Amino acid sequence: MDDTRIILSAKDIPHAWYNLASDLPQPIPPHRHPMTGQPVTPDDMKPIFPDALIMQEVSTERWIEIPGPVREKLAIWRPTPLVRAIQLERHLKTPARIYYKNEGVSPPGSHKPNTAIAQAYYNKQAGIKRIATETGAGQWGSSLAFACDLFGLECKVYMVRVSYEQKPYRRSLMQLWGATCVASPSKDTNAGRAILAKDPNTTGSLGIAISEAVEDAATHDNTNYSLGSVLNHVCMQQSVIGLEVKKQLALAEETPDIMIGCAGGGSNLAGLIFPFVKDTLDGHGPKLIAVEPSACPSLTRGKYAYDFGDTAGMAPLAAMFTLGHSFVPAGIHAGGLRYHGMAPSVSLLHKLKVLDAVAVHQNAAFEAGVMFARTEGICPAPETNHAIRVAIDEAIKCRETRQEKCIVFNFSGHGHFDLGAYDNYLTGKLEDFELPQANIDNALKELPANAPAL
Amino acid sequence: MDDTRIILSAKDIPHAWYNLASDLPQPIPPHRHPMTGQPVTPDDMKPIFPDALIMQEVSTERWIEIPGPVREKLAIWRPTPLVRAIQLERHLKTPARIYYKNEGVSPPGSHKPNTAIAQAYYNKQAGIKRIATETGAGQWGSSLAFACDLFGLECKVYMVRVSYEQKPYRRSLMQLWGATCVASPSKDTNAGRAILAKDPNTTGSLGIAISEAVEDAATHDNTNYSLGSVLNHVCMQQSVIGLEVKKQLALAEETPDIMIGCAGGGSNLAGLIFPFVKDTLDGHGPKLIAVEPSACPSLTRGKYAYDFGDTAGMAPLAAMFTLGHSFVPAGIHAGGLRYHGMAPSVSLLHKLKVLDAVAVHQNAAFEAGVMFARTEGICPAPETNHAIRVAIDEAIKCRETRQEKCIVFNFSGHGHFDLGAYDNYLTGKLEDFELPQANIDNALKELPANAPAL
Repeated sequence: MDDTRIILSAKDIPHAWYNLASDLPQPIPPHRHPMTGQPVTPDDMKPIFPDALIMQEVSTERWIEIPGPVREKLAIWRPTPLVRAIQLERHLKTPARIYYKNEGVSPPGSHKPNTAIAQAYYNKQAGIKRIATETGAGQWGSSLAFACDLFGLECKVYMVRVSYEQKPYRRSLMQLWGATCVASPSKDTNAGRAILAKDPNTTGSLGIAISEAVEDAATHDNTNYSLGSVLNHVCMQQSVIGLEVKKQLALAEETPDIMIGCAGGGSNLAGLIFPFVKDTLDGHGPKLIAVEPSACPSLTRGKYAYDFGDTAGMAPLAAMFTLGHSFVPAGIHAGGLRYHGMAPSVSLLHKLKVLDAVAVHQNAAFEAGVMFARTEGICPAPETNHAIRVAIDEAIKCRETRQEKCIVFNFSGHGHFDLGAYDNYLTGKLEDFELPQANIDNALKELPANAPAL
Repeated sequence: MDDTRIILSAKDIPHAWYNLASDLPQPIPPHRHPMTGQPVTPDDMKPIFPDALIMQEVSTERWIEIPGPVREKLAIWRPTPLVRAIQLERHLKTPARIYYKNEGVSPPGSHKPNTAIAQAYYNKQAGIKRIATETGAGQWGSSLAFACDLFGLECKVYMVRVSYEQKPYRRSLMQLWGATCVASPSKDTNAGRAILAKDPNTTGSLGIAISEAVEDAATHDNTNYSLGSVLNHVCMQQSVIGLEVKKQLALAEETPDIMIGCAGGGSNLAGLIFPFVKDTLDGHGPKLIAVEPSACPSLTRGKYAYDFGDTAGMAPLAAMFTLGHSFVPAGIHAGGLRYHGMAPSVSLLHKLKVLDAVAVHQNAAFEAGVMFARTEGICPAPETNHAIRVAIDEAIKCRETRQEKCIVFNFSGHGHFDLGAYDNYLTGKLEDFELPQANIDNALKELPANAPAL
């Protein structure tokens, strides 16, 4: 019997993160201050981030050592399997070889703890006792709760109210790991109280929750803020994914032709592809594809410009493909992909034409997810279904062209907490949304005026 | 860094199941017909089971080859990791070494698919097109749905109504894998209709659901019935767990002193310990411990006698520790442990004093589960918490006696679909039930009169 799962041992967990900034033909444009439009300095970040993470955010060193205690915690579930999707290949009758990196095996169920562990560690080292963050669907909040628990830090999560009420199990998971989770807007911050005074029945938003978490960190002793995607240090800390995949593909004697990840803020895609980008830049690497939802198509229909990282316009300006910070995506089930922008590092790759992008509708994504579950046996997260859709589409192209390509995608998380969405799909209740160009155009009118054009 | 996870590769998946019947000092008493009290013949079982499973049920061969297609499907998630619970050890300050076999990594989330895959395969080989079964909390139903999907069989699951309504995600998972799942009692069977006519608002019971599934199998063409625990062939097909653990302990240069599993019908415990029983019988093996809930203590407070396998008195009589088939356990969250009897093979081991048994209350079990989640990072199923409780208790004894024992327990499943129970525990709402002796005495009065004493 062939071994369809390529398994590494704990010694194969990478000893250093790979920093893409070291190999880019031009620098990632710096974050800028939301009020002044001037480049953000390390000092600007000190009130909410520890020095080690600030240094990683601006570093251009190629390799940054992973501290021993971080590797020890990563070893709870890493290295993750790289799996040949042989049953899916047979079902598709494709000559392509499809591999998926299963990041769903982490205790919180996705790739998010790769960076949560590192962030909790550096905050602990800096003497911080408590971390505040926001979460939408709950993947990031539960990952940070998990990481804080492992390092003995307090954790406060502001969870968008509509998700807090719709996904009680994600909240329970955070509480199981000892975190405090409140519905946002909450009465715990000035920002939350002000919004509740205006609209007591608001469903909340990620923008509001970010405002609450940042205020919490800025106004509590020994408390920092933590972000689960977008930033350079977050994308770099996800590079363990691609570094492991490199080893695993070598063991399988494979060279990847196509690499695929879904992209909301961009971190799971970054983690998979960044270690392969240099080869692609040099003309002999894989084709790289970001998959986003048609309802929130920042790379495929957005503008490359400086924009606020948050909805409220309080977070720094980032150089990214954006739909405008006031853009409100439709209520698709892939909550992790409902972000108006895209990581600056990922955005630059798309600008440089090193990274392709495809947008897919949610019914097409769930159709792919159900096919995956019924062939490979594993239930994917709604976000992951987007990557699966394009992996299947590429494998079908290979059937038509008779090309034996090697396709690798990131299985970013499992769908155990998203089965209600599958119910909706299987009973024909899932909607596809055609996004009017006017919605994007209107939101793009509100881009900040104090930053340079890109 | 030490490798705390002992990982095998696909070639280490066992090639044969181990049959405990070959090594027992006395035979497991045969199943008996519920009406006549006479030993059940293979012919009696043919209306609902394929020949291959009937032969396995009565076999005394030591090794039974695992068919290639079964091993191929098991390889979707097997071999499972054996993990040293080093963070838990440190937390307990114990000199004991604690290992857990993580069966929660299967796509349905527990050990159940080990036998579901085998049963689906043999039914497919026998030309069966469709399998009917019952499920309580949904672990078994989702595992059989998964297995039937992989072999292209239809699957009909009768799910106890109260669970059907309380655990919609388990139902969704079955539907994701293409199974049909109905609340039991249903209008699809005579048994179901009769009960609904008497009590339209009944919450259902496992006994009723078994009656419906057996009737379904007996009255539909090309349809068989499938059971997820208790039977000899089921326990044997779980032996892949213990066989892998043997290899993994050898790699870690460990000899187990204590092996622990929770026990409802007995199959996850059987899977772990059966390959070690011969050593224990010979006087040089590990101490073996079954852990059951205080609310349903068949081994610790039941009687070793022939009793009906189901509540309704329609299933064959099994020689087992039983609380009486009419015994109704309190509504604890560990739904998989709410069974009045115990597998005949497991029961015989306890009768022979080869297997110890301990009963624990559910608050104590959840306390252990939360400690495990907060140290090892993984959220266990409520059933699994029972095994963890006793592993922790044994490790604490080692701290007191300064003994460096090697403790191994079966992590039978994850708790992703049971977080509501954790919510109740963490908010102090979980009840412990003191089981009155009269409840047991009354149920034992209804033991069948047509079977021999044991």
